[in-house]
Amino acid sequence: MTSHRCLNIENINPHIKEAEYAVRGELAVRSEEYRARLARGCTELPFDQIISANIGNPQQLQQKPITFFRQVLSLVEYPALLEKEDVLLNQLGYKPDVLERARWLLKSVGSVGAYSASNGVPAIRESIAKFLERRDGHPAEPKDIYLSAGASSGVNTLLHIISDKPTAGVLVPIPQYPLYTATLSVLGSKCVPYYLDESKGWGTDIDAIKGAYKIAEKKGIDVRAIVIINPGNPTGASLSIEDIEAVITFAAENRLVILADEVYQTNVFKGKFYSFKRILRDLQKSNPDKYKHIELASLHSVSKGMVGECGHRGGYFELVGFDPEVQQQIYKFVSITLCAPVIAQCLVELMVNPPQEGSPSYELYKKEYDEIFTGLKERAFALYEAFKQMDGVECDEPQGSMYLFPTIKLPIKAVEAAKKEGRSPDEFYAFRLLDATGICIVAGSGFGQKEGTLHFRTTFLAPGTEWVDRITKFHRDFMAEFQ
Amino acid sequence: MTSHRCLNIENINPHIKEAEYAVRGELAVRSEEYRARLARGCTELPFDQIISANIGNPQQLQQKPITFFRQVLSLVEYPALLEKEDVLLNQLGYKPDVLERARWLLKSVGSVGAYSASNGVPAIRESIAKFLERRDGHPAEPKDIYLSAGASSGVNTLLHIISDKPTAGVLVPIPQYPLYTATLSVLGSKCVPYYLDESKGWGTDIDAIKGAYKIAEKKGIDVRAIVIINPGNPTGASLSIEDIEAVITFAAENRLVILADEVYQTNVFKGKFYSFKRILRDLQKSNPDKYKHIELASLHSVSKGMVGECGHRGGYFELVGFDPEVQQQIYKFVSITLCAPVIAQCLVELMVNPPQEGSPSYELYKKEYDEIFTGLKERAFALYEAFKQMDGVECDEPQGSMYLFPTIKLPIKAVEAAKKEGRSPDEFYAFRLLDATGICIVAGSGFGQKEGTLHFRTTFLAPGTEWVDRITKFHRDFMAEFQ
Repeated sequence: MTSHRCLNIENINPHIKEAEYAVRGELAVRSEEYRARLARGCTELPFDQIISANIGNPQQLQQKPITFFRQVLSLVEYPALLEKEDVLLNQLGYKPDVLERARWLLKSVGSVGAYSASNGVPAIRESIAKFLERRDGHPAEPKDIYLSAGASSGVNTLLHIISDKPTAGVLVPIPQYPLYTATLSVLGSKCVPYYLDESKGWGTDIDAIKGAYKIAEKKGIDVRAIVIINPGNPTGASLSIEDIEAVITFAAENRLVILADEVYQTNVFKGKFYSFKRILRDLQKSNPDKYKHIELASLHSVSKGMVGECGHRGGYFELVGFDPEVQQQIYKFVSITLCAPVIAQCLVELMVNPPQEGSPSYELYKKEYDEIFTGLKERAFALYEAFKQMDGVECDEPQGSMYLFPTIKLPIKAVEAAKKEGRSPDEFYAFRLLDATGICIVAGSGFGQKEGTLHFRTTFLAPGTEWVDRITKFHRDFMAEFQ
Repeated sequence: MTSHRCLNIENINPHIKEAEYAVRGELAVRSEEYRARLARGCTELPFDQIISANIGNPQQLQQKPITFFRQVLSLVEYPALLEKEDVLLNQLGYKPDVLERARWLLKSVGSVGAYSASNGVPAIRESIAKFLERRDGHPAEPKDIYLSAGASSGVNTLLHIISDKPTAGVLVPIPQYPLYTATLSVLGSKCVPYYLDESKGWGTDIDAIKGAYKIAEKKGIDVRAIVIINPGNPTGASLSIEDIEAVITFAAENRLVILADEVYQTNVFKGKFYSFKRILRDLQKSNPDKYKHIELASLHSVSKGMVGECGHRGGYFELVGFDPEVQQQIYKFVSITLCAPVIAQCLVELMVNPPQEGSPSYELYKKEYDEIFTGLKERAFALYEAFKQMDGVECDEPQGSMYLFPTIKLPIKAVEAAKKEGRSPDEFYAFRLLDATGICIVAGSGFGQKEGTLHFRTTFLAPGTEWVDRITKFHRDFMAEFQ
């Protein structure tokens, strides 16, 4: 059959075949099949619900959208509602600042059905710049900000620009969100892995970075950039000022572009978030010569945080210290796909400029925001407590992001059974968990892990504790079976 | 300065530097600068308004969104409104079918803030399959449909899969929408141009295709696919059944994937739209052996037609006859960027399944749809009449899409003046037009044109005739200046 076709598995782009993206891989596909069977009324499965703990998708797991955001979006989608101010205010519970914001956005955007400028609506870029100035205490310029369809699309743009030849390499933390390795595979350039230090709460280990860089150099790889995910995915770790300074210094010494994936900047339970931009500008003040020529791209998104609007595909990146000619090429590249979804651009604006104290929508916004934050934290700790009780599982205290990334030690018989199925032991464990409980996690091998260690990543987004009990019971049965 | 930087124009991805995308190029950037100056109150320009006739962006040029679509979207963005059914129906003018559709979408999607499956919401893919069955009279399967962020993102996916090596080539019509050449440049694979026949209303000339294929073969290019834009962009031409059959037969004989860009399928004033899928299935019925193994990908979008919702970035492609293993790789590739914007997926559903006769929203929907269609046609003909009067301009009767693509013959002095500025004559003309009138068009060289010919592309979206008069006057002055 295959041989008659123009396109078969042997003659398509080999770089795409090489790319791996476990977060939505075979396990996730099987979980969707189970979900479809349950929806069709199937009663033969040992569970009645799928818990997608494989991906940070808050609103799939019953996180409610923030009211202010969605009220504004309803008005920019259907501006005729603004002609019924009285009905909106008195019968539908919209506050005056909702109407005001919608009017301002419509004035800035025109119709959300029209293409915007390739780098995003100018007024929205201005609003983001103001947010960055408030956050960092340093100037930010609208011309350096590019709206994107989620942070993923921004990463895609930046890695495209950087990857100039097959020997171009990018330092990527391991474990990592597999977007980075997958995109580098598609581009045919090199991932240069550096390991995070599990013994220090998954911190960034500058010696590990230096070691990885040296090995890559010896292999003839031209290392051009370093990716930092802060707070970490899948680890949740927040970098200290010292760690950030060490990375910036290393980048300065080795002429590396810094890609700071900061999408979890508000998902912090432990420590504090410091942006790379802020620390870079501080360093530049104290030592202008040494840090003059650093190029930093930092990414943010509406998908995570307490916003959780990943289905809207909104985000942006800010470029710091980039050559104007290179920025022109970035502009051209993003213009080929025209612009980020305009309604998502509006959502980015709402995220960076939410209701302020004293404004009519503030109280509800604050309440909703805090409840989401508290809920995430409580669920993270409930899961952590459960993991602590489990034989062969070790888990750090929750730090942030939306994930826990425990170590598991599996019995030798389980390792052998996995081998027979042609799977890594952690994958084998994850498939067994899904088949038994309907809970979909991602095996540690999907993010990378040190040789000889096993992990899995689970979100702590699903409400309730019943599903945690299901994991505990499964784990006990699994260990008993293979002991 | 440049040399200190990690990234400079000499060491970024050379494929990106090579890519050209005139639709949003230097001219469009200058027009945005003028727009910003006007917005700041500048009175020194010889015009008080920018007309962006460079890009099919209907809602920027005052095309109103269809009420039914936007009412539904307002409800899926803010579902709490559905609890106030009485207010919606009696005070805000929503009809019962709007509420019903919003409820169905919310049931199918969950929250529009949640990621969907990588290939799109299952129920929306089912709805698209039903639309395709009604349109073509042949079966369609949801599993073969992939939601995308506009058709551009679908083209990007398909060209990624096909481009397996630097000698891989794709037949592209000239003139063409530059997305194709730009994406092939980024991928480092080869554009194999075939010229459309201007003397036959920009029809597809099978001999030109065969000739282009032979030349490419001789150069060692492995031609793997053929792109057809039907109705044409920038030309507006609709292919006849015979032309489509000829292309399919050629593809069958030479084992080429067919990429049918059918985003203008409802923008047809002259002739009739036949989908490639329909003609392929008809051929397969009458001659199963010969046409058994054709692989066709056809693309559609919410950006064009009477929908005009390009800012939402919604679209889909259908795969016909693709190898399941290849489809798995396509699924993996699209999963790396997670999913198309979910609100745009909803809009795709509304486009393919609009209110039907007898339903409460039908009358208004039909009125709005017809008015947009009639308006486009009237403006196309008004522009065409103006071009007919202009010295040195030749234009075919409007056929469809959103564009006219007249030939221009410029005086030798203008050609020389262009040379001095380092521009092609048609670019020179386009810059002069922008500087004098604020009207932004795209030079024919941005789409490709036969050696020695000059053209420009303009949309006919801008309302009124005053801007057409501005073109006429500019052209007269320009010709007088360089005669």
